[in-house]
Order: sequence, then structure tokens, then C-alpha cells
Amino acid sequence: MMMTQQRDFTSMVDVTPDEVHALIARAEAYKAGAQLHLTQPVYVVNAFFEHSTRTHTSFEMAETKLGLTQLAFNPAASSVSKGESLHDTLLTMAALGVNLAVIRHPEDQYYAPLLAAGDLDLALINAGDGSGEHPSQSMLDLMTISEEFGYFDGLRVVICGDIAHSRVARSNAEILQRLGAQVFFAGPAEWYDHQFDRLGTWVDLDSILPTVDVVMLLRIQRERHDTNDLSGAAYHEHYGLTLSRAQLMQPHAIIMHPGPVNRDVELASELVEGPQSRYVQQMQNGVFMRMAMIEAVLRANHLGGLEA
Amino acid sequence: MMMTQQRDFTSMVDVTPDEVHALIARAEAYKAGAQLHLTQPVYVVNAFFEHSTRTHTSFEMAETKLGLTQLAFNPAASSVSKGESLHDTLLTMAALGVNLAVIRHPEDQYYAPLLAAGDLDLALINAGDGSGEHPSQSMLDLMTISEEFGYFDGLRVVICGDIAHSRVARSNAEILQRLGAQVFFAGPAEWYDHQFDRLGTWVDLDSILPTVDVVMLLRIQRERHDTNDLSGAAYHEHYGLTLSRAQLMQPHAIIMHPGPVNRDVELASELVEGPQSRYVQQMQNGVFMRMAMIEAVLRANHLGGLEA
Amino acid sequence: MMMTQQRDFTSMVDVTPDEVHALIARAEAYKAGAQLHLTQPVYVVNAFFEHSTRTHTSFEMAETKLGLTQLAFNPAASSVSKGESLHDTLLTMAALGVNLAVIRHPEDQYYAPLLAAGDLDLALINAGDGSGEHPSQSMLDLMTISEEFGYFDGLRVVICGDIAHSRVARSNAEILQRLGAQVFFAGPAEWYDHQFDRLGTWVDLDSILPTVDVVMLLRIQRERHDTNDLSGAAYHEHYGLTLSRAQLMQPHAIIMHPGPVNRDVELASELVEGPQSRYVQQMQNGVFMRMAMIEAVLRANHLGGLEA
Repeated sequence: MMMTQQRDFTSMVDVTPDEVHALIARAEAYKAGAQLHLTQPVYVVNAFFEHSTRTHTSFEMAETKLGLTQLAFNPAASSVSKGESLHDTLLTMAALGVNLAVIRHPEDQYYAPLLAAGDLDLALINAGDGSGEHPSQSMLDLMTISEEFGYFDGLRVVICGDIAHSRVARSNAEILQRLGAQVFFAGPAEWYDHQFDRLGTWVDLDSILPTVDVVMLLRIQRERHDTNDLSGAAYHEHYGLTLSRAQLMQPHAIIMHPGPVNRDVELASELVEGPQSRYVQQMQNGVFMRMAMIEAVLRANHLGGLEA
Repeated sequence: MMMTQQRDFTSMVDVTPDEVHALIARAEAYKAGAQLHLTQPVYVVNAFFEHSTRTHTSFEMAETKLGLTQLAFNPAASSVSKGESLHDTLLTMAALGVNLAVIRHPEDQYYAPLLAAGDLDLALINAGDGSGEHPSQSMLDLMTISEEFGYFDGLRVVICGDIAHSRVARSNAEILQRLGAQVFFAGPAEWYDHQFDRLGTWVDLDSILPTVDVVMLLRIQRERHDTNDLSGAAYHEHYGLTLSRAQLMQPHAIIMHPGPVNRDVELASELVEGPQSRYVQQMQNGVFMRMAMIEAVLRANHLGGLEA
Repeated sequence: MMMTQQRDFTSMVDVTPDEVHALIARAEAYKAGAQLHLTQPVYVVNAFFEHSTRTHTSFEMAETKLGLTQLAFNPAASSVSKGESLHDTLLTMAALGVNLAVIRHPEDQYYAPLLAAGDLDLALINAGDGSGEHPSQSMLDLMTISEEFGYFDGLRVVICGDIAHSRVARSNAEILQRLGAQVFFAGPAEWYDHQFDRLGTWVDLDSILPTVDVVMLLRIQRERHDTNDLSGAAYHEHYGLTLSRAQLMQPHAIIMHPGPVNRDVELASELVEGPQSRYVQQMQNGVFMRMAMIEAVLRANHLGGLEA
């Protein structure tokens, strides 16, 4: 089974359920110790135009374990600061011999014009675009759910927080509903967007909690909200997973969070390391899932001496 | 033939025509797949005190392909910000075991006092000094011209833009005239400096375009001009290579630009990827030429277990 | 002899004289060319929350020579800037597979709560904490003293400068007095703290200079003093090692400085490279001592396939 037929990995919209299962299987193999053997060097640049620890380091670790060669790229010290466009920066990278660019960028769908131009001789992996998508986070979330339940069909998942601005919500809701899961959205009404109606159902958190299998919390993107209309404590009381609200959950239900957690805002601090939390497991799985995603892109592009 | 007899590579003034030809030959060998085999580790630090993408990444790629070991250095997070001098920072690097420093610095001839001090036990490669020189850009330009024409003697080259502040103009004019090329300068008169008279002839761009083999455009150094006396559109109209002005060029003539291009300022955007442009080829050649330059410096310093 | 029994290397308080000697012996072996052979990969992150050149690059070089795999970490571009705590950042690093974190942080004893939490599955090396300790600087200073004198017992050492705020003074005084050395403190009285009385004796610099074996100068931490009450020239005259004051020293006595030197402030510029200075030797030794310290921590944690 092909892990992907695409030359770039930018959106969950393009990923089929079969590809999801193949990628999870390959990620589990990496988790069990499988190794990839490149026969030609692959040069990768991680271009993060937004702050990141876990996604950036997770991609770095995945690339290192796969044997890719990394080139340092610091947007703040690059020609981007001289006004060069992302397209022209990547044109440069390709000319210098870079084969793969892993990009995080604050602009929604920054990759669309790059792919449309069609003249970039390198592969792209989207590590998060503005309020767009976050496919590698979504894939590691699917891996974590798969490890817990073994299936997606009929699974009940509530996603809670700033839905409208969340690339995690968008990517996960998109693929989860196609995998047969029932998706619910909760959180502040003013942070919901009815374009999500096609992917799930807007609900009251307290009412839905007793019936779901997965509680997926979103980080409050403080850097995207310049209003002080909702303090951390007020958010926690009204929309966060408090200790008392967590009592409503079924014993088998799990708590997920893409990190970094604002402790006692989205999630009561002591629940972060609690038995129902999969927070650490998500981060662990991320390295192996990103190895699988990168391998898939290398194969689709015949890089590293790998067959498609 | 020696590729260089110098222990440092800081200025084109020191490079002989024979050395140019030897370096181009070696760079072409690398482009064709030649590999260097170090028998001892070589530790290199890329110290970029000015923003850069292509030069920085190009040196990184060249070092990686040669098998050098890179140590991260971020001036903004270094003791330079505590007031340490460049000399003392390099004294530290040498004491820590660094063998080679590739340096970009905003100050003209920053390397002169370092070499004069004579106490630094590491080799230097100048990756651009203020409005001084940019020898690796010049060498990759020569390689690109050589691939096109096979000779320099009698070749007619016009360099257009902010001549006075351009390290690319200075390095290229210096070596091109010694290689027998005829060098012309064009652009805004207020951006010309008569110290360049000894290296070439100040001309009107439109008059010279029909007669030259190479049109070498310089980037407007927005960061060096704090006046708004000349907008991008006005520059393009008066001094840029517009579509109509490009019609004046001979069919065999080529367009060069060190990058990053300000599209529709120095060069009409659609000419950047046009058939006469060597913009991408210049970037590609840069990696291989820098490999040759680094190898030459390693040999001159008996580093990496290499013979001189 | 064990080089250390601790799983983390955070303070000289925990280091026994026997461990000091074992670490120096191992560092000297590395200086003589010994190599370590890891049989399993070790992933390390250097998390520097304060500016540094020599300590940062020295740890990088030590890790490279030992064969560790480094992952880039830039606090300014990390989730720390989103408000994530150091604990949660390290929890992330451990989940991603990082085995060792080398940390510099402006907060005194930042590591205490991390170790108290007890849930971080990675080893810590303290590369300097605020005005707390700087164990790797202390260990390289001990190595340098050992190379000069071969013993510590009865050695007379004066530490001069901003004693109260110096992590170098604290770490060195702590271990030197336990090794049997006689420690003296000098400098501006307002920069002394009587908590140091238990470790040594407050003296007048000019009076003690003719009797000591080691003059250990501290860098004026300009970034920790926002007063202009003492200019560099005034400091030099009253508390610095001037040329005339250096005449008071015994011929066999040595001058040490952790760097970066403020030339002609703590130390007359021409003394920095003078015959009694061990400034460059300290930096050289630092790489080998850090190799020994890292190895000790790897062994204590059974990392890299090494026996304890």
C-alpha cells in the first residue's frame, strides 16, 4: 500500500483513509525500532517562520533518525528579512541542492502559490500554516487514538477551544469524519466558525463529556488574541477541563492536547500527567509519525535512493 | 597548479589568473561528482554578522559535502553581544579547536587587523565585508561566465547598480580586468565612485547594452540606503533591466545577479527565469566553487590531513 | 574510581575531591587523544537562555568529539516564548527522545525544582545558573591549576572582582577550599557578600598579590550592573590587574580569567597573552574537561551503551 502518492505533504484533505492506516503502520514499525537506509544523501531545511519547540525538534529528531542531512535556516537571519519572498528563498534552497523543506508559516495556505508556480525542485512538508492545517500533528493524533482504540469508525471525539483559529481542529476534524468518527466542537461560541458545521456538531462541553471517547483540547493561541476579554482562570472555569469536569468523562476516555499546555487554563495541571492524559504519548508518537511522513515524501519524489 | 598559496581567502586582489583557472577546474570536477576524503576532522564555524540566505546556506552545503564538521555560531546569542571583539571571539574559537572561520561582517576589511595581529591559529574565508569584497561570489560568477564563454580575454561585461557600495562590483571588476575582460559600469551617477575608474569605464546603460556579453546586475542594498530618493519603480524605469531594455541585448549575452533579486526593480520579474538569465545557475555553481575554495584553504593550511 | 555518582552535574557542592581528580585524569586523557566509542546514539540539546560563546561552543565541540547527536534549540524561537515553563519544555524534549540537556539559565538554581519534580527522563548538566554556580568552568579551572602545580593543598588563590554575583567565584571557592587551597577574595567592597566568609578571606588585592600562586580575575558582568558608578578605567585603576600591579606577583604565579575579558578593565590588555596568563589554556582545557563531565553523566545514566 502506498503511504502517499503526493510529492508534497501539505493538507489532510489530500490524505485517504488507506494512506492514514499505512502511515500509522509504518510509524509503529519505527516505534518498534525499524530503520531506514538511504543510499543517497538527502538535504533538508526546516524553515520555521513561527516559534515552535516540539514540532521543530520533533522534525529534527525524525530527520536525524532517518539519516537526512540538515542545513540550518534561521528566518530572522535570512534574506527573508531583506524582503525576499518565500518562493524565491525556496528557489535558492533548491538551487543549492536542498531536496526537502519542512515549513511552518503564519500565513494560511502559504504553500498553495508555491505549488501552483510549479517551478520548485524540492518537496514540501507543511509543519503548520496559520489557522490552516497541521497535518503532522493530525497524523500523530490519529496514531495515538489508533493505539488506544484500534479503530476510528463510530468513535466519538470532542474538540474544545478556539476552533476557528485552530489548524489542529481543522486537520483533525477533516480526517476524523472521513474515517467515520463522530466529531463534536465545544468552547467559546465566539471562537467557533460555522464553516466547521460540515465536519461535526457544535455542542455544550458538559453535556457531551459523558458520551465521548476522546477529549481533544486546543491551546489558547495567546499570540493570536490581543484581547483580554477572557482571562486564563475564566477560560478554565467555563471551557477548560477542570478536575470536576473530568469526573464527567467515561473511564476509558482519553485526554489529548497538542501542546504546549497552558496549565490550569485548557487543562487542570494535575490532569496533564494523569492516567487519562495522552499528552506525553502524543509527543513520543510524533517523532515516529514524522519519520513515516518524511519517508513517504522521499519515496514519492525518488529521493535518497528509495523506490516509490 | 596550486589553487591558492594563501592561508586565508579574503580578497580577489590576492588571486592570480592561474589560481582562478585552477579553482574553476576543481569546482567543475566537484560539479561532476568528485569527492574529497578528509583523513582528519576539520572544525568550521560560519560567523555571519549580517543577514544571508544563499551565501550562508551555500557555504554550509559546501562544508557538508566536503565532510567538514560545523559548529553553530549565532552572533546575536554570542559574547559579541557582551562587547567581545571579533579578534577575541576568534581567539576563543581557535582555542576551542576550530580550524576554519567563514565570516561575513558589515565592516569593510574587518579581516585586515585580524591578519595583521598574526596570532589567530585558524584560517579565514571572507564571505563578504561591508562595501569591500565578496570573493566567493566573484569566483562563482567567474565559473558561470567560464561555462558560458570559455574565456575572459576581451569579454565585455557591464556591471549596473550601486557600484560604490557593492562588494560584488569591487571583487568582480578587480579580477575581470586582470583576466583581460573589458569592464563597464552603469547605474545612478550618485552611486558611482571614481575610484572604480582604474578598473573600468563609466557608461550609459542603454548605449552599452547592444555590445556586451554579460550584464551583471547588483542588488539595491535597501539596508544601506536610508533615503527614499529613488523608489523601486523609478529605479526600474531608469536603471533596471526592463523587458524593453533587455531587447537591446545581443542574443548570446547573459544576465547575472548575485541575489536576492528585487523583482521588477533591478530586473523585470519574468526575466529572472528567462533564457538569458543565469541566476539559478549562479546559485548552483556557488556550492561547487565554495567547495573548491575551502579545499584550497585546507590544503594551504595542511588541514584535514590534506597535502598543500 | 567513579568520575561521578550523580545522574546530573549541577553544582560543585556535590563533587568530592576524589571525583575532581578522576575527572581531571580523564580530561587529560582526552587532551592526549583518547576517544570514546558510543554503542548507542545519545541525543543532546544545548539550551542556552543567556548569551554565550565559549561555554556554548565548548560544549558543542565536546559533544561532537564524543560522538553525541545534537538537536538545535534556540530559546528565542521556542515555545518558551509562548510562556511554556522550563519544566514543560524539558518534559517535551525527553518525550522526543532527548537524553541530555546542557542548560544555561539566568535564574539561580533553576535546576532545583526540575530535579525535585523527579519526572524528567533526561540528564542535566548545568552550564551556568544566574549568580549561582558554573561547575564546568570550575572544573576546567581546576584542570588548568593542576597542570601548573600538580596539587591544590596549601595553594594560595585570590579571586578578584564582583564576588557576590559571580557563579565562577562561588563554584571555585566552594571546591578549592575543600581541596585544601587557601582562598582569598578581593575587589570592590560593595561587590562582596559575607556569605563567602566561610569559603575564604576578604583581603586587599595589593597586599595579597605578592603571596599568591593563582590570580583569578572575574569578568565585570556589565549586564548585571545597570549603574555607571564605576567606569572601566576606574575599575582597572583600583581593582584591575594593571601592568604595575602584576609586578607584585611572584614569578611562578599564574593569571586566570573565565572570559570574555574586558581588556584594560579586569586585566591589562597586554597581559592577556602574556607569559603568566593561562587564558587560552583555560579555553583549550574546557573542551576536554567537558568531554570528561559529559562522559561521567552518560555513564551514571547508562546512556550511549556505556557502563556506569
